[in-house]
Amino acid sequence: MSPSSTDAYFPSVPKIAYEGPKSDNPLAFKFYDENRVIGQKTLKEHLRFAVCYWHTFCGDGSDPFGMGTWQRPWAEHADPMDRAKAKMDAAFELFVKLGAPFYVFHDRDMSPEGSSVAESERNLRTLVELAKIKQQETGIKLMWGTCNLFSHPRYMNGAATNPDVNVIAHAAAQVKAGLEVTVELGGGCFVFWGGREGYSTLLNTQMKREIEHVGRFFEMARDYGRRIGFTGDFLIEPKPMEPSKHQYDFDAATAIGFLRRFDLHRDFKLNIEANHATLANHTFAHELQTAADAGMLGSVDANRGDYQNGWDTDQFPTDLYQIVEAMMIILENGGFTRGGLNFDAKLRRNSTDLEDLFIAHIGAMDAFAKGLEIAHRVIEDGRIPRLREERYRSFDSGVGKQFEDGELTLEQLADHAAKSGEPARTSGKQELIENIINQICFSGE
Amino acid sequence: MSPSSTDAYFPSVPKIAYEGPKSDNPLAFKFYDENRVIGQKTLKEHLRFAVCYWHTFCGDGSDPFGMGTWQRPWAEHADPMDRAKAKMDAAFELFVKLGAPFYVFHDRDMSPEGSSVAESERNLRTLVELAKIKQQETGIKLMWGTCNLFSHPRYMNGAATNPDVNVIAHAAAQVKAGLEVTVELGGGCFVFWGGREGYSTLLNTQMKREIEHVGRFFEMARDYGRRIGFTGDFLIEPKPMEPSKHQYDFDAATAIGFLRRFDLHRDFKLNIEANHATLANHTFAHELQTAADAGMLGSVDANRGDYQNGWDTDQFPTDLYQIVEAMMIILENGGFTRGGLNFDAKLRRNSTDLEDLFIAHIGAMDAFAKGLEIAHRVIEDGRIPRLREERYRSFDSGVGKQFEDGELTLEQLADHAAKSGEPARTSGKQELIENIINQICFSGE
Amino acid sequence: MSPSSTDAYFPSVPKIAYEGPKSDNPLAFKFYDENRVIGQKTLKEHLRFAVCYWHTFCGDGSDPFGMGTWQRPWAEHADPMDRAKAKMDAAFELFVKLGAPFYVFHDRDMSPEGSSVAESERNLRTLVELAKIKQQETGIKLMWGTCNLFSHPRYMNGAATNPDVNVIAHAAAQVKAGLEVTVELGGGCFVFWGGREGYSTLLNTQMKREIEHVGRFFEMARDYGRRIGFTGDFLIEPKPMEPSKHQYDFDAATAIGFLRRFDLHRDFKLNIEANHATLANHTFAHELQTAADAGMLGSVDANRGDYQNGWDTDQFPTDLYQIVEAMMIILENGGFTRGGLNFDAKLRRNSTDLEDLFIAHIGAMDAFAKGLEIAHRVIEDGRIPRLREERYRSFDSGVGKQFEDGELTLEQLADHAAKSGEPARTSGKQELIENIINQICFSGE
Amino acid sequence: MSPSSTDAYFPSVPKIAYEGPKSDNPLAFKFYDENRVIGQKTLKEHLRFAVCYWHTFCGDGSDPFGMGTWQRPWAEHADPMDRAKAKMDAAFELFVKLGAPFYVFHDRDMSPEGSSVAESERNLRTLVELAKIKQQETGIKLMWGTCNLFSHPRYMNGAATNPDVNVIAHAAAQVKAGLEVTVELGGGCFVFWGGREGYSTLLNTQMKREIEHVGRFFEMARDYGRRIGFTGDFLIEPKPMEPSKHQYDFDAATAIGFLRRFDLHRDFKLNIEANHATLANHTFAHELQTAADAGMLGSVDANRGDYQNGWDTDQFPTDLYQIVEAMMIILENGGFTRGGLNFDAKLRRNSTDLEDLFIAHIGAMDAFAKGLEIAHRVIEDGRIPRLREERYRSFDSGVGKQFEDGELTLEQLADHAAKSGEPARTSGKQELIENIINQICFSGE
Repeated sequence: MSPSSTDAYFPSVPKIAYEGPKSDNPLAFKFYDENRVIGQKTLKEHLRFAVCYWHTFCGDGSDPFGMGTWQRPWAEHADPMDRAKAKMDAAFELFVKLGAPFYVFHDRDMSPEGSSVAESERNLRTLVELAKIKQQETGIKLMWGTCNLFSHPRYMNGAATNPDVNVIAHAAAQVKAGLEVTVELGGGCFVFWGGREGYSTLLNTQMKREIEHVGRFFEMARDYGRRIGFTGDFLIEPKPMEPSKHQYDFDAATAIGFLRRFDLHRDFKLNIEANHATLANHTFAHELQTAADAGMLGSVDANRGDYQNGWDTDQFPTDLYQIVEAMMIILENGGFTRGGLNFDAKLRRNSTDLEDLFIAHIGAMDAFAKGLEIAHRVIEDGRIPRLREERYRSFDSGVGKQFEDGELTLEQLADHAAKSGEPARTSGKQELIENIINQICFSGE
Repeated sequence: MSPSSTDAYFPSVPKIAYEGPKSDNPLAFKFYDENRVIGQKTLKEHLRFAVCYWHTFCGDGSDPFGMGTWQRPWAEHADPMDRAKAKMDAAFELFVKLGAPFYVFHDRDMSPEGSSVAESERNLRTLVELAKIKQQETGIKLMWGTCNLFSHPRYMNGAATNPDVNVIAHAAAQVKAGLEVTVELGGGCFVFWGGREGYSTLLNTQMKREIEHVGRFFEMARDYGRRIGFTGDFLIEPKPMEPSKHQYDFDAATAIGFLRRFDLHRDFKLNIEANHATLANHTFAHELQTAADAGMLGSVDANRGDYQNGWDTDQFPTDLYQIVEAMMIILENGGFTRGGLNFDAKLRRNSTDLEDLFIAHIGAMDAFAKGLEIAHRVIEDGRIPRLREERYRSFDSGVGKQFEDGELTLEQLADHAAKSGEPARTSGKQELIENIINQICFSGE
Repeated sequence: MSPSSTDAYFPSVPKIAYEGPKSDNPLAFKFYDENRVIGQKTLKEHLRFAVCYWHTFCGDGSDPFGMGTWQRPWAEHADPMDRAKAKMDAAFELFVKLGAPFYVFHDRDMSPEGSSVAESERNLRTLVELAKIKQQETGIKLMWGTCNLFSHPRYMNGAATNPDVNVIAHAAAQVKAGLEVTVELGGGCFVFWGGREGYSTLLNTQMKREIEHVGRFFEMARDYGRRIGFTGDFLIEPKPMEPSKHQYDFDAATAIGFLRRFDLHRDFKLNIEANHATLANHTFAHELQTAADAGMLGSVDANRGDYQNGWDTDQFPTDLYQIVEAMMIILENGGFTRGGLNFDAKLRRNSTDLEDLFIAHIGAMDAFAKGLEIAHRVIEDGRIPRLREERYRSFDSGVGKQFEDGELTLEQLADHAAKSGEPARTSGKQELIENIINQICFSGE
Repeated sequence: MSPSSTDAYFPSVPKIAYEGPKSDNPLAFKFYDENRVIGQKTLKEHLRFAVCYWHTFCGDGSDPFGMGTWQRPWAEHADPMDRAKAKMDAAFELFVKLGAPFYVFHDRDMSPEGSSVAESERNLRTLVELAKIKQQETGIKLMWGTCNLFSHPRYMNGAATNPDVNVIAHAAAQVKAGLEVTVELGGGCFVFWGGREGYSTLLNTQMKREIEHVGRFFEMARDYGRRIGFTGDFLIEPKPMEPSKHQYDFDAATAIGFLRRFDLHRDFKLNIEANHATLANHTFAHELQTAADAGMLGSVDANRGDYQNGWDTDQFPTDLYQIVEAMMIILENGGFTRGGLNFDAKLRRNSTDLEDLFIAHIGAMDAFAKGLEIAHRVIEDGRIPRLREERYRSFDSGVGKQFEDGELTLEQLADHAAKSGEPARTSGKQELIENIINQICFSGE
């Protein structure tokens, strides 16, 4: 289990290289050339890819109707701590071979729950020491840390919104340790995903009180984080449901309203997940734009749902239409600072080859590389940005500007209508815009 | 067209009477006995039913695949103003016979659009004068007024969020007149439903700017309303989509966040519609509770959607489960003040008998009467309220109270976990709660 | 572990008695009085309740985001066969105390998978011998048997539709043994639920070939069953998706078309599940009616989904509207013969009290008892059946009858239109029908 | 209104030319070069594009919440027959300028309903005479005809499934005339879309009888068509709902089962619409494959729905992923014979420029041209077809072949399992397949 045996778990997989669009090597990049420059930055700097620990190293392919299908060599150790160390070796081997600059993890992904709060923390610190060494050896960085406040039975009724304060206390213990190790490992952000923060039925729930509890909990976490020197972003990750029937962080707009209400919006931003947008009946782009417009676009969980079923399929992102629209918003928002693109995605249950882990990440990285290129071209091309800009030109001067500047009363604006008569009918040009997107996507460089 | 001919349009329909649960008269109430007292109030005072002008008097049964099927005698006049007057006679005849204490209308429901702003306003004022007389003669009151800012082609790209300020000006003209006549008719609320306030594609939309525009527009309306003596509630009515692909007032949480951001939350509340909750993937109860928890439950559009298709079916509300849960929240919130239960509901397209208008309203009124009775009994029974109360008892003292009161740091709460060990596992008792609801619903009085 | 210790697992739960609608004992029936006669049969004979082995005795409360929450005393034995025996003791204790006349099981619910086909069969036969004794001692009967062809990793790509014939062979081995023990235990039906019979992506799937394979497999099973003396019904259970993205038995109509195509419709009927109807965008009633109209309504999985998320929540059935409509169709179809109402339903994950298992079943049995009573009353009342009957009276004589009898050409029917002129417009009376349902539901007996 | 004035309605639009992928002319094809050869056929022969009359020439941009927004010069004539003639001039001008080889229409699109069956037929024949001349002058062909059996109020309760035989008679009169004019104009197919063939509530519906009625109606239509010399395909077009709550032709599998049951499957095929697939919770590809596997893929309504709302948005098809998968199935099925790709698609309501009609069709034609090219490349590339083929190789010999050939009993297959032991676990390779699709889509030619 020495860190030097960097081929222990994926011996058949070389360092993944860029071989260009004509290669038929499934273990090579077709579009992601990390050093290629688009605009002012390399692809690596733009995209800031992160691999997630949970789906990639902890998952076993089980689903609600079937047991695990993935046979992972690192999961074969009998002792939980040995298993955790083997898993970390496998993880850093994959990060390095894939060329992913970042990773992300939950406390319980990296180290096993112990039989007491103290033992769980000891386990975590042991593994974090190893991770620190791995980070130094490889140059891989931690994008963000987080705590798993949803898998343990104690959280079945919620973590920070649990009706029992003793459970909230356990969440506090995990978050305290989680913040400490995130600082220790240099993580840029700390994420809260509130999978159990919601309800199963309103009839047994005091929703108002529960939401106030989670607000209070976030204040406490924020204050502690700042006290111990965490200077990064706190992120909350909206999701409408599943596992809870209703989750309090339903979508970006709901989460932003919550953060502002509890005066948390200066420390917290959002981690937007594509699949969660789908579940909330939004587009990925809508959620990104909503966060960006509020100055709260922190990071992205890059995956994909299935529009035809209502559950969280967490597929690897390969839909270029979604990706192009996402990257346009990210580029127009100035790109990422502390966050990036985390592949919160898992293999299909029957993708049982170890190599499939690489193939899936390669496909997603290629898709975002191509998507970034096309998004950049759409912006450079200018036709769509100009169309959008020109639609609003009536606000750049005259009555429109006065309206925007708050200089008109309702009567004055109403008078303008009476005087100016029926407005012209202006086409929204949606079909033209869709044609331009297809033209740029499919016309080659 | 004299107001005395109160039998002109529905000659076969008598004043609807309460005949009790065994009556097989389709034109009688089975459960709604307006003078029956539950708790401290009569059913009439509790439920504050309103009939809506648009579906009941303006609709013709057309749908996207077919022309109108309803043959309404009041729609047969050739001249638009004659038609509007006949419609008003029919409307008040129905209000009176049904025993509905309130009605609601859009400006364009009551009076036809003219060829200019001035003509439209003249038309409106003519009809409002008649309505005022009708109100005095019958005792029927206006619950709220609103403006139709979505049907005219000029609003195809939005009203207050239109990219053309000239269109916003027309919206301002309508809202100015709409506020004036709402005051004139003594309406308790003024509603904004933003059917076109949203987008069809983000690629041609500056969402941030549009949302700021509607915020500004609401400020102007609020200021004007207060200047002319409107002391009631402004209400916005959340809906996620349709006709727009995305609407800005997606759901209650989104609308509340918006109102707080623009400092409108002291003047604005929400008008919650059951069908819109369904479309937003929420329960009706969830939307009501969210509004109530924010102190913003203003009024209710009482109808019903179809869970199995995604469009706004606006069926008459008859699902007692939905209604009981809704009435529990309304009762626990102290009931309505200015708002009430407006039947924003329409007949099925093939319900072509004139009598069907009465039958549908009777069924809905009976359903709410029964629902109120059951909700009251669930609360009196006490089993469910106690279960809910007891779930949160750990916050009533000790560490839980300190947590709620903001007296703990994260470290202190974490320490508590370390000391107190694994919390007990407490059943949420959802199945028991569902059984009690069924027991109370189906065991008779 | 002697069968005489009938209080080993639920010592706090007595034999559940009927205590009537006013009882506040959560462990008593409020509506289900098994000996009450409605029409010509007792409630017990009408409803033919069955408890399922899997959710009630094998489930542990885990979900895709969290580990098991239910602590079951029968699951604590270390040895799998000991665990299976303890589970059976618990199962029959519950069946008896609940007063459920039937149970149902998958082979792997009752006995553990062995390390070989032979060992798995030996395990199964050992447990079946015990079940036979239990059945004799208690009078509880097996309603149907089935095989779990979805949980083991080998079935990840399908069972009878697996692209590898070696997997189909394993399915054949399970079904052979499953049929044998179903005959041994006197089961009236044998069910196929094809959770993995479908696809994840069409791009790697020969759908036509897979469907032909499952057709062939069913023929083989039918022929074997008939050879060994199985005289009951084979049932397939439609479901549109989950765990597969697409399942071949999408809904009742699809399954019926498949059975007719492979000439299986004389031996196979359908097992209709409420929750699967929801997932397929149908009502429960629609699926029941479709099966009944084809003469293929075999049995029912009585549960409930959540309209607001797209996954298989398998909640206990308590929605009286669904149940009344279902029971009307079942009554009009002459009731069950070999099948019945199986509670394919599970507790919410946080319903962790052992008693909750009883409470949930009691609530569902009460709901169906009440639903049967109301359905019977709706039929006896006659208003709705008459309305439906009268809508079609034009086919009872004259041109309509000739049309139905196949005696008209298109020209002759067209001529009739030319002669008879525009037809009258006839209201569908949906609102009236909904009112009558509510009146009968909520007016007491 | 002389047919020579071929520039009367779209004077600003030239004949649309192929200008290649770099053109920024919105009124030029970027990808659709009709004479380009792919495989053995030109793009024109492969794709067989048709323009539809209803959305393109009859629609006015109204939606359930707003009046028409499209100002069409051909709709301005006061007299209905003049309007119909002008519309036809506009239609053929667009067909010619666009280079669409086919068109399709409903009887009532082309000519107005009269006050009697006889007058309606006279109107239709007058317009059909003009259409015949237009077809000869331009070379444009009729792909299929159909009857509008859903817009008139008489069909509110169904056409062939109406509870009143007098309404069915009117449907018969329309279909008789519709078949005659389809033969007259040389249409290759005759389509039935059963928008009102379904129900609003089961409680007033005899579903079995209604389905038998429509079966009988189709037999009568088939027999009449064959008698008058129609040698083409009858097509039914599945759709799950809207305008009916439930439609009997829910999806392809349901429609195929129906056609086989009524022995109509030798004369009828399916017209598959992309948007209807979405509404039925299927992919477009699934519906195409289901039809193709049954030998019933007749024609395609090429459009697109919105996954995020549940209604029939009928957008122009531009999603290349959908199109590539569709074209793969169409190519592997040997392409179209009598059918083709009909753009059953409409402009967004705010796409109010006359030119938008051309822009939308151009985008859709370009998308299918590109999609065909990519589908062809995916097949030629061979990686995906090989992966799929190899998954099933166990059926090409030995036990697998015996199984397919029906030579094994269940016992023999079970014995094979016992002997051969646990099967190997084989990856489904979904992620690899998705990567290959993206590589071929985005790597240029």
